[in-house]
Amino acid sequence: MIIALTAKGWDIPAWVENLTAQLPEAEIRLSDNLGDLSEIEYALAWKGDTDFLKALPNLKAIFSLGAGVEFLTQIDDLPEVPVVRVVGDDLTARMCEYVVWQCLMHHRRQLHCLEMQKQKIWDQTADAAASDFRVGIMGIGVLGEAAAHKLKMMGYQVSGWSRSPKTIEGIDTYHGPDGLDVMLAKTDILVTLLPHTPQTEGILNLDLFRKLAKDGPLGGGVVINAGRGKLQVEEDIATAIREGILAGASLDVFEKEPLSPDSPLWDLPNVILTSHIAAISAPKATTIHIAEQIRRNEAGEPMTGIVDMKRGY
Amino acid sequence: MIIALTAKGWDIPAWVENLTAQLPEAEIRLSDNLGDLSEIEYALAWKGDTDFLKALPNLKAIFSLGAGVEFLTQIDDLPEVPVVRVVGDDLTARMCEYVVWQCLMHHRRQLHCLEMQKQKIWDQTADAAASDFRVGIMGIGVLGEAAAHKLKMMGYQVSGWSRSPKTIEGIDTYHGPDGLDVMLAKTDILVTLLPHTPQTEGILNLDLFRKLAKDGPLGGGVVINAGRGKLQVEEDIATAIREGILAGASLDVFEKEPLSPDSPLWDLPNVILTSHIAAISAPKATTIHIAEQIRRNEAGEPMTGIVDMKRGY
Repeated sequence: MIIALTAKGWDIPAWVENLTAQLPEAEIRLSDNLGDLSEIEYALAWKGDTDFLKALPNLKAIFSLGAGVEFLTQIDDLPEVPVVRVVGDDLTARMCEYVVWQCLMHHRRQLHCLEMQKQKIWDQTADAAASDFRVGIMGIGVLGEAAAHKLKMMGYQVSGWSRSPKTIEGIDTYHGPDGLDVMLAKTDILVTLLPHTPQTEGILNLDLFRKLAKDGPLGGGVVINAGRGKLQVEEDIATAIREGILAGASLDVFEKEPLSPDSPLWDLPNVILTSHIAAISAPKATTIHIAEQIRRNEAGEPMTGIVDMKRGY
Repeated sequence: MIIALTAKGWDIPAWVENLTAQLPEAEIRLSDNLGDLSEIEYALAWKGDTDFLKALPNLKAIFSLGAGVEFLTQIDDLPEVPVVRVVGDDLTARMCEYVVWQCLMHHRRQLHCLEMQKQKIWDQTADAAASDFRVGIMGIGVLGEAAAHKLKMMGYQVSGWSRSPKTIEGIDTYHGPDGLDVMLAKTDILVTLLPHTPQTEGILNLDLFRKLAKDGPLGGGVVINAGRGKLQVEEDIATAIREGILAGASLDVFEKEPLSPDSPLWDLPNVILTSHIAAISAPKATTIHIAEQIRRNEAGEPMTGIVDMKRGY
């Protein structure tokens, strides 16, 4: 079995090594040395050089190595084979870590505590309890639903919003544009785990920020974007923080990555930036997951994580 | 019903207001104006002026307003009535927040991320997953057991240690001095939720720190002390951090509180200090809990949280 691999900026030898360990029968070819294109049955890609995908006559499936697929949905004439997102248990667990971690950062005011420590001040101002915070999640797919359950278990009041109706036990769910406004009005911490589609581009803007609850423990909304950078209008985030429309933000993704050193986001108060590391695709866990999907496909069983290319996720 | 109240440095009017709301039939007397001592049936105390407790002939029970009771066990001739610790759902939830929060702080290297942000550096060094970390909890009473379950749910490998044998579903448990050494050898993050007793005083010392695992994701142990300040030898923590015996620490409690501005702890690298706010006793939740206990006692039902005064917790 021949597998093609491309992953811009990633540690390619680690991926080849792990793929070979999980699929000893496979030969891995990198995108700059593909050989006979008709031999390639599977392609694994993360951004980078994806032009070759169009030229594979015997391709069986394309795997996106991360949770996002917009770099694939943007290609017009992709072969008509299943496109599979890799959202395995490891990536899901990591995303839940990030979401709980950043909710706690704002709820327990870690930046304030660090400032007090720096100034050697004993400050016992009490925080509200998790149960006083209303966390709203935009995007309740695999990642959003898992995060909802963990936040709930930590004591937060949790709601979720999706484009079409969805039910999750123990979580208040909303859908559609009207449902979104209802949820935002009672949301203290907004977590976005949406895909990047034409509908979601720029959805995190000043208009949305103004709809968040103002009567919560922090006196203003907090936005945690662990979804896609293109969801956010960074100029609006800067304005919202400066004008007190937002009480804080945690951003792991950006309109353009890597984030430019000139961006005003780096030193806004109460804004916590990370470099798109909320939920990395670890080579070992990811290749285990992909090997399992390939084995299923070869055995005629359904793969999990197949993308609806029209919908975009 | 007459209730005496003393709580050093706390917001007394808030406590009186909440007690009155929960127990409208009660009259609350502060320790500087107790009136006829024979009328007092219940006493609520947190450190401060506790001498009067000895002089109450008709006392039915003493409530410690926080999780600790060492300020009561140190009194030799306390009336022989039940001493009750207030470890309600609210305090337990807050302690779990702190423990999960601080585990994430070290595991996800938030201080490093903040430093990168300050320097405007895009750094994608990957963290290990929660499942790569072994968290050991010393003290698996109500708080420790609750924290163990939440850490497990976040994906950590969790063990617990107690003086006498104890079983918790899904958690590896150890006991006694030999069991402690076994657990420490496979612990990357050590969480202490022990009471302060003659046996636990100074237990967090250089000798113990050297026993922690060195082969974990951070290459050294991390200590999170949310129990009692007297558990720790602060000089040893400073030495262990400076010499790389510990990779980090989170301390919410101190040998002497408030922590002196002269303490070397304030600016040690990878040490996160908070001002004994891990799990505050919130007046509303605490007084609801106490009112319930008093009602039970008056109805002849058993109270929960009664302290074994010989054992000290």
